[in-house]
Amino acid sequence: MPRFIKKLSQKAGKSPGTLVHIGEPRVQAARLSISEYDAQDLLETTGADLQGCLQRRLIDGRIWINMDGVHDLDTIQTLGDHFHLHPLTLEDIVNTAQRPKLEAFDGYLYLVIKMLHYDEAQQLIVSEQLSLVWGKSFLLSFQEATGDVFNPVRERLRKGRGRIRASGGDYLAYALVDAIVDHYFTVLEQIGDKIEALEETLIEQAVDINLEVIHALKKDMIYLRRQVWPLREVVASLERGEFDLVDGETRLFLRDVYDHTIQVIETIESYRDLLTGMMDLYLTSISNRMNEVMKVLTIIATIFIPITFIAGVYGMNFKFIPELQWRWGYLAFWGISGVIAAIMLWYFRRKKWF
Amino acid sequence: MPRFIKKLSQKAGKSPGTLVHIGEPRVQAARLSISEYDAQDLLETTGADLQGCLQRRLIDGRIWINMDGVHDLDTIQTLGDHFHLHPLTLEDIVNTAQRPKLEAFDGYLYLVIKMLHYDEAQQLIVSEQLSLVWGKSFLLSFQEATGDVFNPVRERLRKGRGRIRASGGDYLAYALVDAIVDHYFTVLEQIGDKIEALEETLIEQAVDINLEVIHALKKDMIYLRRQVWPLREVVASLERGEFDLVDGETRLFLRDVYDHTIQVIETIESYRDLLTGMMDLYLTSISNRMNEVMKVLTIIATIFIPITFIAGVYGMNFKFIPELQWRWGYLAFWGISGVIAAIMLWYFRRKKWF
Amino acid sequence: MPRFIKKLSQKAGKSPGTLVHIGEPRVQAARLSISEYDAQDLLETTGADLQGCLQRRLIDGRIWINMDGVHDLDTIQTLGDHFHLHPLTLEDIVNTAQRPKLEAFDGYLYLVIKMLHYDEAQQLIVSEQLSLVWGKSFLLSFQEATGDVFNPVRERLRKGRGRIRASGGDYLAYALVDAIVDHYFTVLEQIGDKIEALEETLIEQAVDINLEVIHALKKDMIYLRRQVWPLREVVASLERGEFDLVDGETRLFLRDVYDHTIQVIETIESYRDLLTGMMDLYLTSISNRMNEVMKVLTIIATIFIPITFIAGVYGMNFKFIPELQWRWGYLAFWGISGVIAAIMLWYFRRKKWF
Amino acid sequence: MPRFIKKLSQKAGKSPGTLVHIGEPRVQAARLSISEYDAQDLLETTGADLQGCLQRRLIDGRIWINMDGVHDLDTIQTLGDHFHLHPLTLEDIVNTAQRPKLEAFDGYLYLVIKMLHYDEAQQLIVSEQLSLVWGKSFLLSFQEATGDVFNPVRERLRKGRGRIRASGGDYLAYALVDAIVDHYFTVLEQIGDKIEALEETLIEQAVDINLEVIHALKKDMIYLRRQVWPLREVVASLERGEFDLVDGETRLFLRDVYDHTIQVIETIESYRDLLTGMMDLYLTSISNRMNEVMKVLTIIATIFIPITFIAGVYGMNFKFIPELQWRWGYLAFWGISGVIAAIMLWYFRRKKWF
Amino acid sequence: MPRFIKKLSQKAGKSPGTLVHIGEPRVQAARLSISEYDAQDLLETTGADLQGCLQRRLIDGRIWINMDGVHDLDTIQTLGDHFHLHPLTLEDIVNTAQRPKLEAFDGYLYLVIKMLHYDEAQQLIVSEQLSLVWGKSFLLSFQEATGDVFNPVRERLRKGRGRIRASGGDYLAYALVDAIVDHYFTVLEQIGDKIEALEETLIEQAVDINLEVIHALKKDMIYLRRQVWPLREVVASLERGEFDLVDGETRLFLRDVYDHTIQVIETIESYRDLLTGMMDLYLTSISNRMNEVMKVLTIIATIFIPITFIAGVYGMNFKFIPELQWRWGYLAFWGISGVIAAIMLWYFRRKKWF
Repeated sequence: MPRFIKKLSQKAGKSPGTLVHIGEPRVQAARLSISEYDAQDLLETTGADLQGCLQRRLIDGRIWINMDGVHDLDTIQTLGDHFHLHPLTLEDIVNTAQRPKLEAFDGYLYLVIKMLHYDEAQQLIVSEQLSLVWGKSFLLSFQEATGDVFNPVRERLRKGRGRIRASGGDYLAYALVDAIVDHYFTVLEQIGDKIEALEETLIEQAVDINLEVIHALKKDMIYLRRQVWPLREVVASLERGEFDLVDGETRLFLRDVYDHTIQVIETIESYRDLLTGMMDLYLTSISNRMNEVMKVLTIIATIFIPITFIAGVYGMNFKFIPELQWRWGYLAFWGISGVIAAIMLWYFRRKKWF
Repeated sequence: MPRFIKKLSQKAGKSPGTLVHIGEPRVQAARLSISEYDAQDLLETTGADLQGCLQRRLIDGRIWINMDGVHDLDTIQTLGDHFHLHPLTLEDIVNTAQRPKLEAFDGYLYLVIKMLHYDEAQQLIVSEQLSLVWGKSFLLSFQEATGDVFNPVRERLRKGRGRIRASGGDYLAYALVDAIVDHYFTVLEQIGDKIEALEETLIEQAVDINLEVIHALKKDMIYLRRQVWPLREVVASLERGEFDLVDGETRLFLRDVYDHTIQVIETIESYRDLLTGMMDLYLTSISNRMNEVMKVLTIIATIFIPITFIAGVYGMNFKFIPELQWRWGYLAFWGISGVIAAIMLWYFRRKKWF
Repeated sequence: MPRFIKKLSQKAGKSPGTLVHIGEPRVQAARLSISEYDAQDLLETTGADLQGCLQRRLIDGRIWINMDGVHDLDTIQTLGDHFHLHPLTLEDIVNTAQRPKLEAFDGYLYLVIKMLHYDEAQQLIVSEQLSLVWGKSFLLSFQEATGDVFNPVRERLRKGRGRIRASGGDYLAYALVDAIVDHYFTVLEQIGDKIEALEETLIEQAVDINLEVIHALKKDMIYLRRQVWPLREVVASLERGEFDLVDGETRLFLRDVYDHTIQVIETIESYRDLLTGMMDLYLTSISNRMNEVMKVLTIIATIFIPITFIAGVYGMNFKFIPELQWRWGYLAFWGISGVIAAIMLWYFRRKKWF
Repeated sequence: MPRFIKKLSQKAGKSPGTLVHIGEPRVQAARLSISEYDAQDLLETTGADLQGCLQRRLIDGRIWINMDGVHDLDTIQTLGDHFHLHPLTLEDIVNTAQRPKLEAFDGYLYLVIKMLHYDEAQQLIVSEQLSLVWGKSFLLSFQEATGDVFNPVRERLRKGRGRIRASGGDYLAYALVDAIVDHYFTVLEQIGDKIEALEETLIEQAVDINLEVIHALKKDMIYLRRQVWPLREVVASLERGEFDLVDGETRLFLRDVYDHTIQVIETIESYRDLLTGMMDLYLTSISNRMNEVMKVLTIIATIFIPITFIAGVYGMNFKFIPELQWRWGYLAFWGISGVIAAIMLWYFRRKKWF
Repeated sequence: MPRFIKKLSQKAGKSPGTLVHIGEPRVQAARLSISEYDAQDLLETTGADLQGCLQRRLIDGRIWINMDGVHDLDTIQTLGDHFHLHPLTLEDIVNTAQRPKLEAFDGYLYLVIKMLHYDEAQQLIVSEQLSLVWGKSFLLSFQEATGDVFNPVRERLRKGRGRIRASGGDYLAYALVDAIVDHYFTVLEQIGDKIEALEETLIEQAVDINLEVIHALKKDMIYLRRQVWPLREVVASLERGEFDLVDGETRLFLRDVYDHTIQVIETIESYRDLLTGMMDLYLTSISNRMNEVMKVLTIIATIFIPITFIAGVYGMNFKFIPELQWRWGYLAFWGISGVIAAIMLWYFRRKKWF
């Protein structure tokens, strides 16, 4: 449930543009890592002297500042002042309870996207908010925690492969979004494997399945859908070329990201359909099995009821029960009981009752 | 149910523009509180001399008149005459059974929005209608009852923080709508906590849950959806800049409110999905448990039926039942009964019937 | 069912524009009532001399001709000739099986709307078709039966209150549509009261409810939806100002009617949701109750089965059953039976089986 | 099922425009009937000399050629050559597995529509494809079988009533489409009567209903929907005036056909809803009834179990069972048994268990 | 499950335009078959000398290069260089996990479509991705495996029938897409036959059906829908004439393909509806049958319970049980037992319990 709603209420009544961190701090201290680069050189600094860096930057080249941990309001204010970010942008960066969105401001674009990974320990999907702010020659990225899926991008930046060093903030932003959406597929594969395993168990041995596992997966799908669905519109509006800050060539690549986003959404929908189908299958299996059990037990009871009655009859104390005196009465009793039981079994079997 | 439909019928057949109060009066006497302000000063009066105030106002500055209780038709008529409100606007203000809407008239905008809070006593969400009327330099707000979520706004007005004193009626209207939407999150959190608690109980001990609690929450969601859904279009049309009376800068803030409204709606949808899932889980748990009980009882019965039959057999009074004469017949009976019961138990266990 | 489809087939193959009355005549003889008026005067005639009236009218002033009973094809043809109505319009007027619609012809607008009321005797919603035809200075209204919701409008016309006498056919048409939509709320309130009462009974004593009552209410909702839903588009296109024959000021009032129509539709949707929820609740209550009964009965049976077995054991006629000879054997039997029953009860209770 | 998919696969891989008849021939030999007419005269020929007729026609007047049976590829090719039809049109005419559609070609419009009737013998709806091709002064109609709903149109053509003889192919096409859509209502009424009868039986005596009847009706609705739904767009695009070959006055009549199509679709949707409701009602009735039976039987069993136990007790052979020696022991047994049974019955009744 | 998600994750983090083969290689070595043709001649080569062919081609005529197996990255790179394909196009060709799409690049169009066939062995639908790239006078097709549905097209190419040899790449592309969509119908017919057979079994003998068969067919429909649905938009945008590379005459043929695509989608939807209906029917049949069994067994038990009680009564050892001494006591017991059983049977029958 805490996944579905965060304590936004603590912001209620505050003046707009007030910096209030929404969400739980996931790292102790915020950490900065700065990459300054142009087509020739790359300078990477970590946990660096922000002020010095920002002054130096004024000269030339491009810069990517990544910040892990968004509860350090001072640093974010400093960055906001330097890059002339609107107070509403800063407010949104420190609010980790947002839905994916894209907003254009004077001189920069602001994009919110969710990074997902499957937490094996908790057996559920967790999401982390990434805020991207980029202009012609800078890109700021804000993560909630350390650890991300950007290492391949960093590697390409270091090796100077492809167009990444020669392009502006828009291309770098595209590369990061692309890395995140590609990672969605990894998460979906993990979920897919779980569903597949569950389905096999279900067909072989429905009883061994805990309904709550299917329920939890369905909840994961509701959650996933909400994290990813708005991204479709975000990427589409980037690709449509509504914004000057996105280059024509980059738009061609964004068309690809858009396709992937659609594919992610369609896969989520397919999973939902599959899980609904599995739920039905589970309920039917359980109920069929229960019915089998009850049927067998009832058949046993039904066979014994008439012959128990007969035994009762010959336990009666009437003075004149001629059969009781017969030599073979007792044997005849067993014979008749056997015949009755056999007829009933044959009848039940013919009716395919067991 | 009274939440879902109000006695609109008493208005049927009246000439349009006739003032008829729809809804139950929630306060005894209507109460006015007036804030006159400009960038420098603020004058707050309560329960004030309306006429004097309205005349004084004619000079200059901005004014916010808040009225608690909309059944005082005279005062509303006075305000309507002074601010040149259309009869339809007045009719709508006193009709508390409206859906959120925005209407443009000559010289002012009229907005209807619902304030929500969770009533712990009744265990349900209650809503109160707020009507906002604003022009260049005035804002009128009409509430059904005293008690609202505007204290932080009043505080900002008093302290002169932010742009609130320097801006017109549109910014103040934004601030009030923002406060209301922010409060929606508080309500959603309360509901969310209830759902979370319910879900935990459900997984641990389904029997302890009363189905009507889930049912009531689902009804709350239907109600909530109806109160909030139309707001989306209202805020969107404000933000799109269709109206002169909304400033460009204010529109930037409204984009934020729009995001929050979407988030509220998505949360409501998620809750509905969760509650539907919980309902399914509940029904399945109950039915599984019932099945368990019946199975155990039936197994007990089934085990005793054959051995009761055997006891019946040896209660028969046939003259010649050789076993009855045996020395160890009685013991053999117990032995055979025990073996039969053991075989059945072993068989049922192997079949995983219990 | 006859509510859902009328015998349209009798029209099949007829040339278009042929007058065929579809539906059952609800009054014996059609009845005309004519109101001629201008800002100063009003002349009301009933069951009047149509020809004289139509000639007189040629001079000046406005006229409203209301006709109860649409199976009088001659009178309708006369009206059609006088007001130059298209044959298709006349064909539609006498066909009571239409959906709400609005059609523009040369010189007049033609509107079909359904009047609803709740028939307490039959316990269902019945609808009556109203056709409105209006031009600059005339309005014709055709009802299936006498009895309508227009008395307040007639009263306003008589008293000359508001703008009704001074305005053209469009305002009068608005007033009639408004009266009908207002009356929808009355019908919804009646349904709402039924649903509320039903829900209370359901929570207290589900068994007392007849499933068919819920089923009938659901059918009413399907019916209602179909009668009202198309009205939304009709009123919207009137309000959008697509037609010259609707005045700018009247459009402002139509905005209000549009809001009410939306509210009616939303209420119907809410009722559907509520009824679906109640159906689920009913089924679950019934099934829970059934389970309770079966469980109690099964528990009783299960407790007696082992002790009945013991009684059977000591009814056996083995020669050597030592217990039978014991002095306190019989008492011991009762003791053991009591202990077994007590243990089982304690176990079932601990497992919360009853 | 054959209703839902026809053997389109035999066409796979053929060059486009190849004539391949899809569907089963429903008549032995194709049959032509030709009506040549102008405002003054009408000449009807049947099974006629096509070539002579086509040559004669070249002079003047209008012509309607109706063909029953579309597997006569030669005749269709001859018609296609004479009227300059596109190969794709010819291919479509002989393919009876199409959905309703409208296509514009040079000099003519091509419309596919489904004729429906309810086959009482098979108890299901069957459809027959009608292809209409019309230009300024000709109309070709292709049916799968003899027997149609066009007799009233032929009659109007013979009697020269209305505008049918004076108008072009577009009006005749309208008249045929109108006749088909009007006939839909006849089919819907037949289905409606079946549903109504079913519902009455359901409420009185649910057991007598065969679930497959409801299932078959639901399948009919799926089928019907698919046959009719696309017609909406077809008629709408004719009415919107996208095509020169449809006259302004004819468009006015098409608006009427459009309304009827919408009404047919809405009725189908209502029927689906009703059938779903009936299915639920059926299942609940069956299950309630089953529960009743089980409950009564279980109550009977439960009442006898304790007194059977008591009878077992006094069948025991303990040496010292004092009650056995009592004078009134046996009578006391009956008394106690009666009291126990009465208490249980009273308890069950008070709990409203039966 | 592997049908629903492919290992896209291996691409995560790669620079865009990097060739990574996604999917399992379905052939050992890729195989080229080249058709060079103009209106007069046709030259077919298989597994040919690509370089020589590409150089020769530079002169004149049209060319169709088909490649089976997309894991041969070198050959694809060579083709890409020769025809100036964008790196993103090449990346997409070797990624077999795409959804159907159409992308325009400078000088060529790129289309992804799924070929389907029903695998009788695995009892499920398998899909194979086909990439089409075409310009004015060339067409490249990339398949995952050998074996396709293009032989009729090849035949038309060889025989020079129709316009295929005289038209450009767009017409050939149309012919291939048409062949694929036509083949969809073959697959749908196979599925349709399965559903029909299943339904017949269901109505006659529901018990013999395995729920998993219905479940698997439903999964097939989810899969099919996802493969075909996006094709609708692809063909529609080709037909609308958005691209210069599609000829006006070819667009006329594409309208036909569009119709077929819609028909495929509608058939899939109908199948889904049918399968859902069958699932309901199955569950109800099973549950009805179970109820029948339980009812019969319970009735048997219920009839014996009272007479077993009577037998118990006369097995009691009370000193004074007068009946026991009667001459006809035993016979009377049988008579009374018979009467009781008969009354119960008659009662149950009258109540229609069996």
